[in-house]
Amino acid sequence: MKKGIVALGAASALLLAFACSKPTPLKPDLGASKSVKELMAARGLSEADVEAALRTYVPTGKSDDYMIFASGGQSGQVLAIGAPSMRLLKVIGVFTPEPWQGYGYGGDGNAVLAGGNQMGKTISWADVHHPNLSETNGDYDGQYLFVNDKANARVAVVDLKDFATKQIVPNKLVMSDHGGAFVTPNTDYVIETSQYPAPLGREYVPITEYKDKYRGLAMFWKFDRAAGRIDVAKSWAIELPPYTQDLADAGKLDSDGFVFINSFNTEMAIGGTLEGKPPIESGASQNDMDYLHVIDWKKAEKLVADGKTTDIKGVKVISLTMAAQEGILHLIGEPKSPHGVDVTPDGKEMVVGGKLDTHATVYNFAKIKKLIDDKKYEGKDAYGVPILNFQESIRGQAEIGMGPLHTVYDNKGNAYTSVFLESVVAKWSLKDLKVIEKVPVHYNIGHILAAEGDTVSPDGNYVVAMNKMSMDRFSKVGPLYPQNFQLIDTTGDKMRMLVDMPIGIGEPHYSQMIKMDKLKPISVYPLGENPITGKKDPSATLAGQEKIVRNGTTVDVYMTAIRSHFTPDRIEVEEGDTVKLHITSLEQSEDQTHGFTINMMNIDLSLEPGKHENVTFVADTPGVYPMYCTEFCSALHLEMAGYFLVKPKAKK
Amino acid sequence: MKKGIVALGAASALLLAFACSKPTPLKPDLGASKSVKELMAARGLSEADVEAALRTYVPTGKSDDYMIFASGGQSGQVLAIGAPSMRLLKVIGVFTPEPWQGYGYGGDGNAVLAGGNQMGKTISWADVHHPNLSETNGDYDGQYLFVNDKANARVAVVDLKDFATKQIVPNKLVMSDHGGAFVTPNTDYVIETSQYPAPLGREYVPITEYKDKYRGLAMFWKFDRAAGRIDVAKSWAIELPPYTQDLADAGKLDSDGFVFINSFNTEMAIGGTLEGKPPIESGASQNDMDYLHVIDWKKAEKLVADGKTTDIKGVKVISLTMAAQEGILHLIGEPKSPHGVDVTPDGKEMVVGGKLDTHATVYNFAKIKKLIDDKKYEGKDAYGVPILNFQESIRGQAEIGMGPLHTVYDNKGNAYTSVFLESVVAKWSLKDLKVIEKVPVHYNIGHILAAEGDTVSPDGNYVVAMNKMSMDRFSKVGPLYPQNFQLIDTTGDKMRMLVDMPIGIGEPHYSQMIKMDKLKPISVYPLGENPITGKKDPSATLAGQEKIVRNGTTVDVYMTAIRSHFTPDRIEVEEGDTVKLHITSLEQSEDQTHGFTINMMNIDLSLEPGKHENVTFVADTPGVYPMYCTEFCSALHLEMAGYFLVKPKAKK
Repeated sequence: MKKGIVALGAASALLLAFACSKPTPLKPDLGASKSVKELMAARGLSEADVEAALRTYVPTGKSDDYMIFASGGQSGQVLAIGAPSMRLLKVIGVFTPEPWQGYGYGGDGNAVLAGGNQMGKTISWADVHHPNLSETNGDYDGQYLFVNDKANARVAVVDLKDFATKQIVPNKLVMSDHGGAFVTPNTDYVIETSQYPAPLGREYVPITEYKDKYRGLAMFWKFDRAAGRIDVAKSWAIELPPYTQDLADAGKLDSDGFVFINSFNTEMAIGGTLEGKPPIESGASQNDMDYLHVIDWKKAEKLVADGKTTDIKGVKVISLTMAAQEGILHLIGEPKSPHGVDVTPDGKEMVVGGKLDTHATVYNFAKIKKLIDDKKYEGKDAYGVPILNFQESIRGQAEIGMGPLHTVYDNKGNAYTSVFLESVVAKWSLKDLKVIEKVPVHYNIGHILAAEGDTVSPDGNYVVAMNKMSMDRFSKVGPLYPQNFQLIDTTGDKMRMLVDMPIGIGEPHYSQMIKMDKLKPISVYPLGENPITGKKDPSATLAGQEKIVRNGTTVDVYMTAIRSHFTPDRIEVEEGDTVKLHITSLEQSEDQTHGFTINMMNIDLSLEPGKHENVTFVADTPGVYPMYCTEFCSALHLEMAGYFLVKPKAKK
Repeated sequence: MKKGIVALGAASALLLAFACSKPTPLKPDLGASKSVKELMAARGLSEADVEAALRTYVPTGKSDDYMIFASGGQSGQVLAIGAPSMRLLKVIGVFTPEPWQGYGYGGDGNAVLAGGNQMGKTISWADVHHPNLSETNGDYDGQYLFVNDKANARVAVVDLKDFATKQIVPNKLVMSDHGGAFVTPNTDYVIETSQYPAPLGREYVPITEYKDKYRGLAMFWKFDRAAGRIDVAKSWAIELPPYTQDLADAGKLDSDGFVFINSFNTEMAIGGTLEGKPPIESGASQNDMDYLHVIDWKKAEKLVADGKTTDIKGVKVISLTMAAQEGILHLIGEPKSPHGVDVTPDGKEMVVGGKLDTHATVYNFAKIKKLIDDKKYEGKDAYGVPILNFQESIRGQAEIGMGPLHTVYDNKGNAYTSVFLESVVAKWSLKDLKVIEKVPVHYNIGHILAAEGDTVSPDGNYVVAMNKMSMDRFSKVGPLYPQNFQLIDTTGDKMRMLVDMPIGIGEPHYSQMIKMDKLKPISVYPLGENPITGKKDPSATLAGQEKIVRNGTTVDVYMTAIRSHFTPDRIEVEEGDTVKLHITSLEQSEDQTHGFTINMMNIDLSLEPGKHENVTFVADTPGVYPMYCTEFCSALHLEMAGYFLVKPKAKK
């Protein structure tokens, strides 16, 4: 039997697949059913390709094993991706209006988006960086997802019950964030730390006063799990020095109660390229060391409870002086221009990559805690924050390669670090800090993710390289190239590159990968549920309850949708009327979604089974407006239509 | 050798794969390299699955054979998908602002979007239905893509040079469209026909006057290929009866010069569900026949040249009376509630599916032409339009199954019809109109597409079933389910289902599939090019030319971006100033894209290599605004940042 079966020496064949060649089309004309060997010959597949294809193909009707939640970068959204098939299952509308989901086009989702507006302006996009799943005891529990918006300093809450965004919380003190949204091991807090320093509270201060008046911030958003919302009133912050804080991670198990934030530009360079001064990229790269920030958030929480905070624009802030004095904040040197800080599954250590370094540095929490408890300081920074000795804080350094960024973990004591400049994933042992293997990726890997790889119990199985560039990997789609997610099988002794997934929507930063069976989304809403409140809407309308009610110049329309008509299907109002539509889908069958639009009104709703939506607008322009179902819901879908008429005011 | 190779009886195994079971996870833990048989056992793959995996897997660095351009439905966008891998390569921003592409967030794309506004309102989404590639002699030429917006009666032009939207043209006469955007064989015209009737020109008319005052319209947008834009001034229209016109297709070869539009609701039902009247879905389904509209557009073009048009809101319109009298418009019966009309590759016949029918009806152009030339009419409709006899117009009918919708073609004389109610693809012979095979799809197929399947020279090879529903096919993502594209191999005697692709962004309607090697997109822009004008921007800025120029309260900033800094990287203006940023990317390497945002300003640009962008805004709120590169462009990407400062006005 064995003789004829294709013998798969996958690992040895892998390197061939990485030749940096221009894409050459495969031959499509294969004729009738063929044997594996014939198909390999016809389509130019190697043995490694065959193995990869069979490890990633998911037949119709079968489920993927994992769900990847990837930040959508500048798209402002979150991508839900099945693994190992690497199929995009949904683009979840988060910060950017998304009409297919009826999110931001007149319905109740408008209020969620408006909740995220900043400085009196409508903000209709985001630079989404780091999604974090809610955790229970340091493990993903599949209930919520949090993401941050670097460009506008906001955090959003996505409910995984219906994969819908429920809340956007603007940070009113800072102008940008990066170290977010990271959760504490039981999701007590969602952490959001600032990136580019600015005056807290947003007044104008000349850039010459950068060191004195510009600041960073660590925001601790209190999460109310029962409500499924961030409780803004119970949230608080810690003022930080104007170093450019970067990524963050919450301690767990041994290090629970602490948060670690790294930073760059502790030089506090402010550029000046037009004036002939060096750009920030060089000004910020002068020092050998930047600072890892070690924050004792449980101690901070007590200070907040004791009222030892300053009020800035309604936010309780522990001042930098207070944080330094009370042992809330300590600094430790970090090798040149650090980027990722990633706590190990046992919570005992923190791995930091340096963008201009060749090492991953392994900080030891017990050592750090002892230095803190002993108040053994190397000195203080200009802001009075105690500094711990670098060598006394670390266990050692792994020789990784040029530009290590982020690190994730498997279930066998291995770490996987993304190495940007070298374009590889480096697998190394946490035990002896020795590199075991490197696998080339295409190209310029940023973040890396592993199956449950940042929890207290990683799964192993898969790692995904999130590559920033993809030239010569895919068919061309114009000057803006897709990113490239490469799925790597980590079950064997050798890493095995499986498949490339183009990301042609946004530039994802971090992602997390959760076991599919931890997710328990609903299929239909209870009849009349308003997904934003999570309750039956007061205006929910059942069959037979439809009506049009005029009260002065306000017209309330109580409406239903069911295959394949709306009731009412003709609505006439007068020019200038305020119209309030209340629409309930009477469907209760899975996947029986209707849509609703009134043409030319910029209104579009998605009416999943049972869902209720409310829309308010002013009928300011007379005319005959078709309204129709935008989801192809039945054979007579096109007939699921009607008219909204606006009668001109009688001329006086 | 043969003995051990997996013998692939794919077709016989296919049906097994369609069992309507709940998704069950595959086992991911496969260990080290394994044989095909071992992998099949470990992952529960059938022989058909193995064949499908090997026919669709595209190794890293190899190109897909085809590009599918799918309408994004309510997302308002177009999806570019590689086949056979069925990977989403790009979501092209068309009608909906798309921040990753910097489309609609302050840059020059804002003007493109604003060009599509209707009735004085900002329209920021679309219901995109039918993409059509530009053609030369009836074959795709890979240059442009046109799509229509059903909800807001618009047509957009996407340039496939850079996969970017260049123009949105609003139809100022109608309130919705559906039969668009279909091109004539040399792309002289882009056809857009209305859907829900309304008064042309948009005044209010009571719905009781539907038959008298509501109308349909066929718009002929003149395409200027050299300019790459629709020439609105040279475009014209034909008034149509208030039947609900549906899909359209342009004749080719023998039938070149004609356009075919079908319709439903020739009953002119107007609903009234709240008043206890039957909904449109039943009112519109009373008659056995609706009307196929046959338009002689070349004759119409001459009438337009001769000035025989009526002006409605600046649009030249051939009146319904004129169209009837001059032999421009003829009607033929179509079996119940027709949907798709699809001209055969030789241009000799038109296939129409009836939503409530079981047939695909094959109309013969020569027969129709003879009836027209002979003025052999069966009668006239209420609007004076001559009607041709149904039986004398057709060659025959194929017995397809319940609810045939759309038909595409291969290179062997076969037609493939989507059958909605039966959820199958039916393959049948154009020669004898006999069904050859049906393959089940999951579920509720709407449109269908084939490789170059609506051109004069279809490729064969692949058909894609565009299914509206996907329950039990994929992992759950909440009550709003993805659609399901199923790729079917048509090279063999039997159709072979290959793979399911979830579509979790919008609800695509039609798609087209073009040979990849027909597309020749650019990789970088010439230095300083403005992609909207296609020329070097007058404000293009080269290295050393950067400057800040104040003129009264207007501040022009001439700016460059290159790894990894902006020049200038500090800009200070005064509260109330009008700021005009002119930014050129100095990069010329493939995939070296930068982004640009000023925080809290709702500004986001994508600066692909060489691209120039202009942004104008009023600096109305004092403060310190970070600005940074939003694409991870280098190891020091995070340092590619600066500050935009707005100094408060001196208090008086």
